[in-house]
Amino acid sequence: MDKLDLPSWIVGFVDGEGCFSISFTRRTKLNCKLEVRASFSVSQKINNKSSLLKIEDYFSCGSLRYSKKDDTFKYEVRNIDDLYTKIAPFFCKYSLLTNKQKDFESWNTVILKIKQGYHLNCDGIKEIIDIAYTMNSKGDGRKYTKWELLQFLES
Amino acid sequence: MDKLDLPSWIVGFVDGEGCFSISFTRRTKLNCKLEVRASFSVSQKINNKSSLLKIEDYFSCGSLRYSKKDDTFKYEVRNIDDLYTKIAPFFCKYSLLTNKQKDFESWNTVILKIKQGYHLNCDGIKEIIDIAYTMNSKGDGRKYTKWELLQFLES
Repeated sequence: MDKLDLPSWIVGFVDGEGCFSISFTRRTKLNCKLEVRASFSVSQKINNKSSLLKIEDYFSCGSLRYSKKDDTFKYEVRNIDDLYTKIAPFFCKYSLLTNKQKDFESWNTVILKIKQGYHLNCDGIKEIIDIAYTMNSKGDGRKYTKWELLQFLES
Repeated sequence: MDKLDLPSWIVGFVDGEGCFSISFTRRTKLNCKLEVRASFSVSQKINNKSSLLKIEDYFSCGSLRYSKKDDTFKYEVRNIDDLYTKIAPFFCKYSLLTNKQKDFESWNTVILKIKQGYHLNCDGIKEIIDIAYTMNSKGDGRKYTKWELLQFLES
């Protein structure tokens, strides 16, 4: 039996099931009223938890949690330093083979902006919103429209 | 950027999204009343069709079709000679890394039995049913229970 190349296996798994996400939460106590969060996640049906443990083990960061809603396990990395030093460099080194590559590139731009503090002022958040709303089928499934988010910023 | 190993990428994708299936259809005109079919398939949301084309291109068999029901594309190989000469040898050479490997091994046993004509007599079909109903979470989502299938055989 031929030995698999683990990074290529992970890219294949993530091409199928991974998600690079930038999300916005309304926080009325914050100056700009919006909290920006980045994450990388991979979901699987409950009987395939072992695959997620393998990915967690490879990246040495993030955690697994169970979603009762859709009876799945999700491996998720939310810590910005882990995203910046572990997840982003991996996918810069090993390019995704599907349309998801475009999402990764946008996500990677936002990760860099967050590291530079763009998410702490309203102009920076606007730039991040512009990028985020071109990703993952242009914002399908988001709680707020882009227009609503911009309204929160200006309120 | 490092070059990906395509077989490893395919194994990762299939570990996440692939399905090795043995299905049974009631056919009252057949001697044993049951038709046995094997397939290998991978599904994706409509915006990720390119990944399936890559897999189809690699295996040089099977076809893509659109499922209106869940708005997905499915790459599927159903021809037994393609399954036997292209799909099975690939996953014998490159082992899956998740629990799906067990399903593949059972599926591979059935593929060999079909090649040997076991699906054309009732005792052979019984053996195939026994194996198939241990696969993919032990038959969840099947139209018939194992008991019902055995009743059809004896009717």
